[in-house]
Amino acid sequence: MQTLADFLGRVNPPVTPALVIRRAAMQANLAAMQAACDAKGIRLRAHGKMHKCSMLGLLQVAGGAVGLCCQTVGEAETYVQAGIGDVLVTAPVPPWGWARLAALAARAEVGAVVDSMDQLTKAFVAARDADTLLHIYVDIDPGMGRAGTSPETAAILAGAISLFPNLNYAGIQAYCGHHQHLAPAERAAAHARWSGRLESVIEQLHAEGLPPAQVTGGGTGTAVLDLAAGLYSELQPGSYAVMDVEYGDLGDLPFAPALYLAATVVSARHTSHVTCDAGHKALHPNGPASRVVQPAGSDYRPMGDEHGAIVPPGGAAEGDLVWLQPGHVDPTVALHDAFLVADEDGSLERWPIDARRSSL
Amino acid sequence: MQTLADFLGRVNPPVTPALVIRRAAMQANLAAMQAACDAKGIRLRAHGKMHKCSMLGLLQVAGGAVGLCCQTVGEAETYVQAGIGDVLVTAPVPPWGWARLAALAARAEVGAVVDSMDQLTKAFVAARDADTLLHIYVDIDPGMGRAGTSPETAAILAGAISLFPNLNYAGIQAYCGHHQHLAPAERAAAHARWSGRLESVIEQLHAEGLPPAQVTGGGTGTAVLDLAAGLYSELQPGSYAVMDVEYGDLGDLPFAPALYLAATVVSARHTSHVTCDAGHKALHPNGPASRVVQPAGSDYRPMGDEHGAIVPPGGAAEGDLVWLQPGHVDPTVALHDAFLVADEDGSLERWPIDARRSSL
Repeated sequence: MQTLADFLGRVNPPVTPALVIRRAAMQANLAAMQAACDAKGIRLRAHGKMHKCSMLGLLQVAGGAVGLCCQTVGEAETYVQAGIGDVLVTAPVPPWGWARLAALAARAEVGAVVDSMDQLTKAFVAARDADTLLHIYVDIDPGMGRAGTSPETAAILAGAISLFPNLNYAGIQAYCGHHQHLAPAERAAAHARWSGRLESVIEQLHAEGLPPAQVTGGGTGTAVLDLAAGLYSELQPGSYAVMDVEYGDLGDLPFAPALYLAATVVSARHTSHVTCDAGHKALHPNGPASRVVQPAGSDYRPMGDEHGAIVPPGGAAEGDLVWLQPGHVDPTVALHDAFLVADEDGSLERWPIDARRSSL
Repeated sequence: MQTLADFLGRVNPPVTPALVIRRAAMQANLAAMQAACDAKGIRLRAHGKMHKCSMLGLLQVAGGAVGLCCQTVGEAETYVQAGIGDVLVTAPVPPWGWARLAALAARAEVGAVVDSMDQLTKAFVAARDADTLLHIYVDIDPGMGRAGTSPETAAILAGAISLFPNLNYAGIQAYCGHHQHLAPAERAAAHARWSGRLESVIEQLHAEGLPPAQVTGGGTGTAVLDLAAGLYSELQPGSYAVMDVEYGDLGDLPFAPALYLAATVVSARHTSHVTCDAGHKALHPNGPASRVVQPAGSDYRPMGDEHGAIVPPGGAAEGDLVWLQPGHVDPTVALHDAFLVADEDGSLERWPIDARRSSL
């Protein structure tokens, strides 16, 4: 690959703000994660919540992923519609979602997680009424307090799942979202502590005659540790495909930046800064600040919903393109309709962010 | 209208998270702003950047608004396509935007602002090539540093506009975004200071034979002051239609909350909080925190991209709906595909947020 500056110099999006994926860098990330999983005999189920893009998901499956993770029912529906044959909804399903997932299971392998008997009952009723099979995982809370049973009660729920017709007890999920962005040493320590707990849960399930067919979890930040732990049968990373400032700044992940936001300088009346057409509606402020890639050495400061300042101007004049790397990729993608996927010669292909639509 | 609790008790969105507009409250806001403008003989050009919804924009025009403001070229195109005959792009137009606006001017009255000779030249070339007429306003910077000429140089740019064929010198724009959310006394003082400057600009333009046909600007926070100032011929408020926490907390605006987010409790394993399915992708964190309306007395805390905590649970159980008021409406709307517009009996109509799509 040429230098980043040379590459960006060849890309000229027809409109701005535009999310641009550098295809070669993304493909290298996809290949690296797939190869790392293959080397350990661990399934890759890439997370579709990050990109919300069927085209990218199909590429991941074509490269060897067993399917996609989804965070919403709408994502699962979009991906199956696009031809992805195996989806797992990794977040708790709202009551209205079960009938939709059960219907979807007539067309694809559909998995979901539960952390309560009430959810389990709803899953069963929906699958029975639709005459389909849902793959159900016990969601285990590794200490985030967001969703999931405690490790101690996982076996009770696993036992209950195994009793229901129309439901396949597929294993357990443990996603350590709170470990993903820790500094390397702290991350390794937290991962080791949690691995001990998880190993006990797996042993207990075996002892009770409920061995988990799959132990699914992990993310971009912990992927290297997850692969080495010997506990997971399936990994769920998402951000590795394109990365962002938050993951890049960890400094120890074997993936390269592949996503940039192109904006246009639309006002340049000051020596202190120029104003570009990317604000809160183009770069989600969650996570670290988005970073200016070009002009090098400048900072980005939001100036409201549709504008941002490039400080100092760094030579950028009215009408010039400026390039940023998003701070946190997932919610930023949710603000856009499409990626522009750029080849090294600057040619562009439009990939709709089709799974960003809600179920509404 | 019934109490808010009674109203929300009747609304049952088919999916969550869902942005719900209380139709009666919104209609009262639209009528109040239109009546206030009519009483002063001032044009209302409601801002479409807030709602990005043609249905809502058409309602504003049907109620008496002369047209819509837009913040992007894509919004202008969507609104004209939907049948709105008069649009003004209130933010600086990127170079790629001028040809699109000039083409649009064959089908509607299209206005745009400029703050540089370079933009003006691009506007002229585009309108000449399309053989259409663009209405051009001098954008004046009231001290935000985001876009706009200094008040002192407004007349130079106005004179230049008036020389070009295919361009109609339509007047001036001065939008005081930095005044909108000030506390009442501070806001009145800042507004008075700026009004003195603006009055001088208008006098200078008259003296130079360049009287502005329109003086356009203002927003929800300053609308009462803008109406009283006697300087604006046209107001550009947006948020008044549905309001949000940020504007509601000012305490002195004559508009009522009309927008709520419905979320579902998807996990309830803790006594400290329950987890709902609304996170950074449903409620944009810019501005003050989103407020929990039901259960009353609880707070909302984001728990990542797709989840949030209701603290304390306030009796909300797994599967229950909870209701929030967005902190800042504009970027939150940009995360959604549609509004559900609710009548008092709970019946729902789906209004696409069709202008949220980018120009890509």
